[in-house]
Amino acid sequence: MRLAVVGAGAVGRSVVDLAGEYGHEVVAVADSSSAVVADGVDSRHSGVDSDAVVARKAERGIVGDDDPEDALAADYDVLIEATPTTLGDAEPGFSHVRTALERDRHAVLANKGPVAERFGDLRGLVDDSDGEIRFEATVGGAIPAVSTVEDIEPGHVTAVRGVLNGTANFILTRMAAEGLDYEHVLAEAQDLGVAEADPSFDVDGTDAALKCVILANVLSFGAADDPADAREFTLADADVEGIRDVPGSALRLAAEDGRTVRLIGEATGETVRVAPRLVPENGTLAVSGTQNIVQIETTHAGRLNISGRGAGGPETASAVLGDVGRLE
Amino acid sequence: MRLAVVGAGAVGRSVVDLAGEYGHEVVAVADSSSAVVADGVDSRHSGVDSDAVVARKAERGIVGDDDPEDALAADYDVLIEATPTTLGDAEPGFSHVRTALERDRHAVLANKGPVAERFGDLRGLVDDSDGEIRFEATVGGAIPAVSTVEDIEPGHVTAVRGVLNGTANFILTRMAAEGLDYEHVLAEAQDLGVAEADPSFDVDGTDAALKCVILANVLSFGAADDPADAREFTLADADVEGIRDVPGSALRLAAEDGRTVRLIGEATGETVRVAPRLVPENGTLAVSGTQNIVQIETTHAGRLNISGRGAGGPETASAVLGDVGRLE
Repeated sequence: MRLAVVGAGAVGRSVVDLAGEYGHEVVAVADSSSAVVADGVDSRHSGVDSDAVVARKAERGIVGDDDPEDALAADYDVLIEATPTTLGDAEPGFSHVRTALERDRHAVLANKGPVAERFGDLRGLVDDSDGEIRFEATVGGAIPAVSTVEDIEPGHVTAVRGVLNGTANFILTRMAAEGLDYEHVLAEAQDLGVAEADPSFDVDGTDAALKCVILANVLSFGAADDPADAREFTLADADVEGIRDVPGSALRLAAEDGRTVRLIGEATGETVRVAPRLVPENGTLAVSGTQNIVQIETTHAGRLNISGRGAGGPETASAVLGDVGRLE
Repeated sequence: MRLAVVGAGAVGRSVVDLAGEYGHEVVAVADSSSAVVADGVDSRHSGVDSDAVVARKAERGIVGDDDPEDALAADYDVLIEATPTTLGDAEPGFSHVRTALERDRHAVLANKGPVAERFGDLRGLVDDSDGEIRFEATVGGAIPAVSTVEDIEPGHVTAVRGVLNGTANFILTRMAAEGLDYEHVLAEAQDLGVAEADPSFDVDGTDAALKCVILANVLSFGAADDPADAREFTLADADVEGIRDVPGSALRLAAEDGRTVRLIGEATGETVRVAPRLVPENGTLAVSGTQNIVQIETTHAGRLNISGRGAGGPETASAVLGDVGRLE
């Protein structure tokens, strides 16, 4: 497949870097201010020079001398939407996806915004298009959360819960392990690059909540006999509490009882909740560090647990490229 | 889809029982000596009476007054092969699958024999047929092991390992928890119905080895550029050691070091090994009781762990019916 990669952050750059290994070629790359579009002159090498693009971004801060609109207008099969997650109208990511679908191309998203905040609008675009959308990379990084849930008979998944934010999980793991308080461990996480300079998206539970909203939309629309009747979720429907107010004393108290604290998100076809919870300290949900885990409750197959790396350029890119493979 | 269910043990009966919930109808059921075939007279209810079939099997030991050959000759879309696993020539299961494929129908297997012992022959039948085969239910019960591995880019899975036999795992879990020896816990497991009167298939590691052989075949054929060059595995290629000789003292010694013992199977595209191994006692591989876990090593996405119920009628039936859904 020919890919147009929109967004040149860690995920976009990894997709550009790895696409060839998956048998795909990158025909265009765009960041917020620039683009590079393959000219298709040499039919054997009609993709962009991946190494050059990544190097140019590192050295000059741009991917090429073209305009981002040129990437959206290029001749691609799949648009990879890897721009930063935005809330509300989920722009400009939503418009990138709309442009692809209106051109009857496919879109694969790593950007959670459109899938969490405008799921109904996306479904409408897909209904009117020959293209499809997929969004495995929006939930759980390398964990095939969305495809595993979708693979289970519609209506046979009653809930999905888990540890879905590696930053918050790293902080709680270190607080428990070292007996340190939140501020101290946050500073350590920022030094390591595990937490951002402004960590609120992660530590306030927003990132985990967006992922749960996406899962709730998948469950809701999957179970509905008529999609027109399916309830659509957005971030506003989520009941969210982060980890800023978890004191070190709570973790010590929990440990005396063989428990610990994890930021747990849960989605059903009816509700979305994110909050710190007590869990058995050696139990399944007590994954460590930046690991994620997704726990799927099913009607006939009991509970499935899938854990793995929740984030990272190559990890998320493998989820994106896995989705491209499912389109073929 | 119209299903012909061959095999009326726990798995076959559960498939008959649950097929309707998945939108499929059962048009024939066979056990080793009898069959029932829907007569198709009433077009709205052209399937068999599932409750009656299950009741008849319980009361009379047969499923109907027809001959098993009538089920194989019936008008179905998918043959469900759920007869007991046999080794070597994998008969009669292999012939049931061959009959379906030669009639250009699909076959979904819960029976490990043909997939572990005659994978190349199965591939040959599929090459000459309009039908496909699927075999999720042969590995890991409710865990979507095969489909998750298949969903990852060919060649990007370097190894699959795990706890794949619930009987052996239950015995080791109880030995560690109670400080009892193997013979004592085996008797308990047999009383509970977790171990068979002749437990050798489970405790000698044969069942786990067959599952690893199946995974090795999936990895080997998945990674090969030309299937004709792919190495085919059978049980004879597996290096297998069971749990009969694990003394209670080994578990006590392990516990002093924060470890325990689990029967671990591992498959790569080159090797298959099953043996008791020391694992961290609170680690990912130390699942408890009859749980199974599959650990997938990938090139770009790190390690994925999937755990869940490894066996059971409804659990295995959900894997079978999930495969039917993937055929559509």
